[in-house]
Amino acid sequence: MISTIDAQVVNVALGERAYDIVIGRGIIDGAGERVGALGASAAAIVTDDAVGALHCERLAAGLARAGLRVERISVPPGEGSKSYATLARVCDSILAARIERGDIVVALGGGVVGDLAGFAAAIVRRGIRFVQVPTTLLAQVDSSVGGKTGVNSVHGKNLVGAFHQPELVLADTALLDTLPAREIRAGWAETVKYGLIDDPAFFAWCDANWRAVFEGGPERDHAVAVSCRSKAAIVARDERETGDRALLNLGHTFGHALERVVGYDPARLIHGEAVAIGMAQAFRFSSTQGLCPPQDAEAVETHLRAVGLPTRLSEIPGGFGGVDALVDAMAQDKKVVAGALTFILARGVGASFIARGVPVGDIRAFLLAESAKD
Amino acid sequence: MISTIDAQVVNVALGERAYDIVIGRGIIDGAGERVGALGASAAAIVTDDAVGALHCERLAAGLARAGLRVERISVPPGEGSKSYATLARVCDSILAARIERGDIVVALGGGVVGDLAGFAAAIVRRGIRFVQVPTTLLAQVDSSVGGKTGVNSVHGKNLVGAFHQPELVLADTALLDTLPAREIRAGWAETVKYGLIDDPAFFAWCDANWRAVFEGGPERDHAVAVSCRSKAAIVARDERETGDRALLNLGHTFGHALERVVGYDPARLIHGEAVAIGMAQAFRFSSTQGLCPPQDAEAVETHLRAVGLPTRLSEIPGGFGGVDALVDAMAQDKKVVAGALTFILARGVGASFIARGVPVGDIRAFLLAESAKD
Repeated sequence: MISTIDAQVVNVALGERAYDIVIGRGIIDGAGERVGALGASAAAIVTDDAVGALHCERLAAGLARAGLRVERISVPPGEGSKSYATLARVCDSILAARIERGDIVVALGGGVVGDLAGFAAAIVRRGIRFVQVPTTLLAQVDSSVGGKTGVNSVHGKNLVGAFHQPELVLADTALLDTLPAREIRAGWAETVKYGLIDDPAFFAWCDANWRAVFEGGPERDHAVAVSCRSKAAIVARDERETGDRALLNLGHTFGHALERVVGYDPARLIHGEAVAIGMAQAFRFSSTQGLCPPQDAEAVETHLRAVGLPTRLSEIPGGFGGVDALVDAMAQDKKVVAGALTFILARGVGASFIARGVPVGDIRAFLLAESAKD
Repeated sequence: MISTIDAQVVNVALGERAYDIVIGRGIIDGAGERVGALGASAAAIVTDDAVGALHCERLAAGLARAGLRVERISVPPGEGSKSYATLARVCDSILAARIERGDIVVALGGGVVGDLAGFAAAIVRRGIRFVQVPTTLLAQVDSSVGGKTGVNSVHGKNLVGAFHQPELVLADTALLDTLPAREIRAGWAETVKYGLIDDPAFFAWCDANWRAVFEGGPERDHAVAVSCRSKAAIVARDERETGDRALLNLGHTFGHALERVVGYDPARLIHGEAVAIGMAQAFRFSSTQGLCPPQDAEAVETHLRAVGLPTRLSEIPGGFGGVDALVDAMAQDKKVVAGALTFILARGVGASFIARGVPVGDIRAFLLAESAKD
């Protein structure tokens, strides 16, 4: 019996790979029934040492009550676990646990655990079934939806991986209660992004309700559900990112470059913070190019500041190494074709678009002006 | 312009993942035109040090003439390269060579290189285009067709991998001229297998023509083409091995167990030799169970012996460690359900079928009788 806790369900319409995202406070306690209903006989929970200490016992107990044989695999917390070596260890642990193709790998954690465990599930026995239990706001609104999995290479982040859709995502919004405020803010950058892409009403709602979301009111479930629905719609249109899915990269070309120039040092900048600066820059750049009204760029910046997110290069502790380093980092992240890059730009709040052929020279001039102004 | 060398083309009908296998003597010299026609701007050739010394220069020169930027990545020869560590090195080398998703990874080698390079192509940037240039008979008739790629785990062979179909397979049968006789024989076991599965006329042809195939006559091209067509038809019906594709495992449950008990020592047994013993055993077991006429089991054994392949446990140098070890190895390779295994058995030459629920006790009794007789 599925427990009667209020839950919202978002379906990701991917044909034979379609799946549900279930969102609500306390739904982890119904994980046994929901995962058990998938018909596997065993589950391997992959988590990290920090998240596992908080939530693994509860999840494992629920799965066991539903009659599943439960195995646990834990990795050190942090981006360092998205490595070839940890991937190999997780794959071997899944095999040692005698998890078969019809069994299930459950990722319990944030984006790192989801990407790592999802990739392992994609390749062990050429594909094992997979369930996500995201424990950060960022993972609930972004990384657990859409099937991108992978690890990092010395040549860059997420450069080795697979598309592997989960069969179920359980986003228990109560798990976010133990999250540090900085992590909530970082996840918020990816939440408000859906408003900025194509939903101005959701941006207005975010601006009015972000405090309630942070505090854990029912608004939190709404924010997660709207975000998942928005991402699900884009992914359903373009699973393999040959078109529209690129819109989800709003703020990410600037953002990835910033993460790279600070050496992926989480003390200086975490992903959501880099995306916040990147989105503010994408709107300011769009405004300086005459594409977007200046008041829309200001509205974006004002909101992000109110939340406590950075929006300017000058806010990066220790600096960003100069405009040349930033432009070089962008060129390493994205393919430069004939001196131009593809960016996500905006004609206004909720009116983002894929801009191909943005001259690198224009970006450089914009960044020089930004860094002089700051 | 595609060169005018006589070539046979087998299409693998996998919808949007359909591709051609081009078979003929000397077709590697037309690789530039054929790979160039795929529209990539760069190619990374992945090979091993032994095969690379023989054939890489010629392939690279052809690709370069077709205007492709060519990078070379080489790994040590042998099964040891199907490891996590070598996979990581190949992935990083592909990234270092700035191969993009629209570019091409070319696997030049036998099954090890094909499985390794194909898996790297499957996961770098979540999927790069892929071309196979198989250089062994085994790879030309079996491992380069069907999209299975992967590496080995301490828990078993090929347990980590992906389905990743090539866009083109170039089977140059002249490359087999430099192959040791033992390798040709081993590949022959997988060739004649297609006759034993469902094509008695091809088995008869194999029995009449194997010498000409080994010597490199036009019969060689025919044998490769029939084998590829046969595997392609099965793969097209069942890409992910949920049904009929299991027929391709004829001889492989016994064979894998034999490889395991000799510690995968190629001095004692290579894959095709293990499959030869396994096919002979599958037919003898079918005969003792009253499923298959004894003369069909004898015909299989007579043919394999004539070719110079082993058919009996007693032919394994150093022995096989006893029946219990063999049965244990089978249980580790395949899932034992209620004391029974799935085997490919036969009602006669060209009449193989998937037999579910074969009691492990019957297999043990058969193996005890075989080892007493030998």
